[in-house]
Amino acid sequence: MLLPDLRREVLEANLELVRKGLVLFTFGNASGISRKKGLVVIKPSGVPYERMKPADLVVSDLDGKIVEGKLRPSSDLPTHLVLYKAFPGIGGVSHTHSEYATAWAQARRAIPCFGTTVELKDTEISENYEENTGHAIVRTFRDIDYSVIPAVLVANHAPFAWGPDPRTSAHNAVILEFVARMAYFTLGINSQASAIGRSLHDKHFLRKHGRDAYYGQPKEKK
Amino acid sequence: MLLPDLRREVLEANLELVRKGLVLFTFGNASGISRKKGLVVIKPSGVPYERMKPADLVVSDLDGKIVEGKLRPSSDLPTHLVLYKAFPGIGGVSHTHSEYATAWAQARRAIPCFGTTVELKDTEISENYEENTGHAIVRTFRDIDYSVIPAVLVANHAPFAWGPDPRTSAHNAVILEFVARMAYFTLGINSQASAIGRSLHDKHFLRKHGRDAYYGQPKEKK
Amino acid sequence: MLLPDLRREVLEANLELVRKGLVLFTFGNASGISRKKGLVVIKPSGVPYERMKPADLVVSDLDGKIVEGKLRPSSDLPTHLVLYKAFPGIGGVSHTHSEYATAWAQARRAIPCFGTTVELKDTEISENYEENTGHAIVRTFRDIDYSVIPAVLVANHAPFAWGPDPRTSAHNAVILEFVARMAYFTLGINSQASAIGRSLHDKHFLRKHGRDAYYGQPKEKK
Amino acid sequence: MLLPDLRREVLEANLELVRKGLVLFTFGNASGISRKKGLVVIKPSGVPYERMKPADLVVSDLDGKIVEGKLRPSSDLPTHLVLYKAFPGIGGVSHTHSEYATAWAQARRAIPCFGTTVELKDTEISENYEENTGHAIVRTFRDIDYSVIPAVLVANHAPFAWGPDPRTSAHNAVILEFVARMAYFTLGINSQASAIGRSLHDKHFLRKHGRDAYYGQPKEKK
Repeated sequence: MLLPDLRREVLEANLELVRKGLVLFTFGNASGISRKKGLVVIKPSGVPYERMKPADLVVSDLDGKIVEGKLRPSSDLPTHLVLYKAFPGIGGVSHTHSEYATAWAQARRAIPCFGTTVELKDTEISENYEENTGHAIVRTFRDIDYSVIPAVLVANHAPFAWGPDPRTSAHNAVILEFVARMAYFTLGINSQASAIGRSLHDKHFLRKHGRDAYYGQPKEKK
Repeated sequence: MLLPDLRREVLEANLELVRKGLVLFTFGNASGISRKKGLVVIKPSGVPYERMKPADLVVSDLDGKIVEGKLRPSSDLPTHLVLYKAFPGIGGVSHTHSEYATAWAQARRAIPCFGTTVELKDTEISENYEENTGHAIVRTFRDIDYSVIPAVLVANHAPFAWGPDPRTSAHNAVILEFVARMAYFTLGINSQASAIGRSLHDKHFLRKHGRDAYYGQPKEKK
Repeated sequence: MLLPDLRREVLEANLELVRKGLVLFTFGNASGISRKKGLVVIKPSGVPYERMKPADLVVSDLDGKIVEGKLRPSSDLPTHLVLYKAFPGIGGVSHTHSEYATAWAQARRAIPCFGTTVELKDTEISENYEENTGHAIVRTFRDIDYSVIPAVLVANHAPFAWGPDPRTSAHNAVILEFVARMAYFTLGINSQASAIGRSLHDKHFLRKHGRDAYYGQPKEKK
Repeated sequence: MLLPDLRREVLEANLELVRKGLVLFTFGNASGISRKKGLVVIKPSGVPYERMKPADLVVSDLDGKIVEGKLRPSSDLPTHLVLYKAFPGIGGVSHTHSEYATAWAQARRAIPCFGTTVELKDTEISENYEENTGHAIVRTFRDIDYSVIPAVLVANHAPFAWGPDPRTSAHNAVILEFVARMAYFTLGINSQASAIGRSLHDKHFLRKHGRDAYYGQPKEKK
C-alpha cells in the first residue's frame, strides 16, 4: 500500500474535522500530498467516517489519475489538485461546510479581517466546477501570500483551508470557523463594527506568525 | 407480530431523529410503509423514545384503521397517510420540530433555494387538521417533483421530510435542518443575500442527484 | 426526616433542570409542596448540584418558617410560597435562567403566543423583592388560567414555571425554553412575523390539552 | 518545585476554562499569585491542555522575570502582572476568548449592566501591547471598584476576569460569558432594550454581593 504514513495523517485530519463539528455526514474532505512522489491522498467520496480506514483513502497523481484505491475520490479532488500545484509550500488541504464560515460564504461577504471571498464566473460553474474553484482561489491569491492567509471562502459554497501538512490544514479550518463565528456575533451586536485597527491586527498576527513571534514555544533553537 | 423488519427500521429512524437533536421530548415521528401489504408503521403518540421497542409501534392501514398495536398512533398519522397515498415513490416520512426549520416555518418564509412553504386555509385547520396538512402539502407539490425536493415546511407549524425508506426520510430531515440553519446564519450576515445563481444550484444539485451524478460511490453497476 | 418522597421528587426536578441545560452553576431552583401537611421542599441556596442529596433540601411552611434543614433555602423561596398560596392546583414550581426565556424577559417582550410578561413596580423591587415577584405574577394571572398557561416571564429577570408536581414544573420550564428559542429564531428570520392565527393556535393547543385531546396516550379510562 | 499548591490551583482554573467551553485550542490563560512570596504562576504558552501538568506551569516574579519553568509563559503574562500590581485584593486572573464576551469586545460595545469596555491607544498597541493592555484596564478602573466588577472587555480583543483566587477568576469568566450571551440574545429580541432599572440591578447585585447578602450559604459566622 502506497504512502501508509500520509494515509494515516490524512485520515486523522478528516476525523479531526468531524470531532470539531465542522462536517455533517460526509460533507467535507481533507487531503495530503507527498511532494517527493507527486501523489495526493484524499478521502473517498460519500463514505461514513466511522468506518473509514487508511486503506479506504484514494491516491491520485497531480493530474487526477487514480494510482491506488478502489473507491471514488472526493468529488472536490480537482480543487485540491489545483491548490497543490499553485501553492508549492502546502502539504494539506481541508474542505468543510462548517456552519458560520459557510454562512459568510453564502452571504457573499468577506469575514472582516480575514481577507476575501472567491467568486466564480458562471462559465466556470457549468464545466469543471471543482477545478475552476481551484483556479478561482489561485486567481484571488495572486497578490496575497497563501502562507499568511491559509484559508478562503468560496462564494455561495463553503470554505477551503490549507497548511504545511494535513493536520495544520484541519487546524486552520477550525480557526476559520472560530473567526467566522466571532464575526457573526460581532455583526449581530454592532452592524457598524469596523474591522479592527491595522496596528492591532498586525500586532496580534505578528506575535503569532511574524519573524519575531513570541507566542507559543520556540519551534527550534534560535 | 406484523412487519417486524419495517418496525425495526421505523424505530431506528425515530431514534436517529433524536440522536441528531431534531426532536424534544416526544415531539416528532417517523413512519414507514409496506407497499406490498398497504400497511403503515408509525411511532405511538407521546411515548418516551428511551423505552420504545419495535412492538410499541402502531400498524395502520392506508385509511387510518389500526391493524395492530395497543397504543394510540402519533396524532400526525393522517398527514403521513395522505403523503403515502399521493407520493407513490416514497417509503418513509419523518416529521420533526427541528429548531431552524421550524423557525422558518413559523416565520412563514421559504428557505432560499429549498422550494416553498405550505400554507393551510383556516377552514382546513379547524377540522381534520392533520389530514388537511397532508392535502396542502400534496397541493403544493402539484408542479414540484417530490423525489427531487424531499421535504417541506408547513407554515406556522414545522417540517415534514420523506424518502424511499424511513432511514432516508430521517436523513432528509437532518439535511433540511442543516440547510435551514445555514440559511438563518446567511440571512443574519446579509439580509439581502439572494438565492444562489441557478447555474451553481443546478451544478451542486446535479452532481449528487442528476443522471450523471458523480458524488459518492456508484450505487450499482453502470 | 420529613417528606422523604417529596424530597426525592424535588431533587430530581432540580437535576432535570441541570440536565436540560437550563441552569448555570446554582442559578435555578425547583420546589414541591405537600398540600396535606402545608409544607414546601426547596433547593438550598448556592449548593452545587453534583453533591446535593435529598437531606440537603430545606423544608419550609407556607409562611417561610424553616421546619427542617441546616442550610439556607433558595433566596427565591418567597416567590414560590406566594405561588403555592395563590394557585391551589399546583404542586411544583421551577425557576431557571434558561437562556432564551431569560433573554425575552430581559428584552421585556412577551414571547408570541405565550401570554404575557410580568412587570414589577420600583417599590416592589426595593423591599421584599422575591415575595413581590410572586405577587406580581399572581396579579398578572388574575384573568389567565394558571393551569392552562403554566409559566411566565418576569421582566428583566427570568422565567418561572409550575405544574401539578415538581417534575411537571421542570418539564414546563423546558417547554418554555424551547418555545422561547423557536420564537427567537423566528423573529430573526422575519421581524414582522405575526403570532400564528387563532384557529391554528387553538387547534395545536387543544389537541394536547383540551377536553377532546387526542395527543399522547389516554391518562385514564374515559 | 516552588508553590506546588498554587500550581495545582492555577492548572485547575485553566482546565475549568476549557471544561466550560471558554477557550479553543490554547487561546486562554489563568494565573495565580502568592502575595507572600510575590510570585505569579501562569500557564505556559501554546501547550495543549490535555497534557499539562503542574510542573509545566511557569513561575514569574512581578517584574516578569522567570523564576522557575522551562517553558515560555503565556504571552499575556505582562497584562496579568500589571493587574496583580494594581489590584492588591486579587489572587487570580483569567483571560479567555469566550465567544459572546469576545464578540462584545470586538463590536466595541459595553455589555449592558456590566460596566465598560477598555480602549487602547494606537501607541499602546505597537509597543508592549500586553503590558499596555494591563495599564488600560487599570486606567479604566480608576473610578470603579475592581472587587465589585471583577471582569472587563478589552476592545477588539477579548475579556479578562479576576478574583481573590484562580478558581474564582475562572468562575467570573464563566459568569461574564453567560451575561454576554444573555445580552446578545436580548439585543436580538429588542434592539432598544434599555439597561435594567437601577433599583432592580442593585437588588440582584446586592443580594449576592452586598453587606447584607442573603444568597448562598453563609461563608463564616457573622
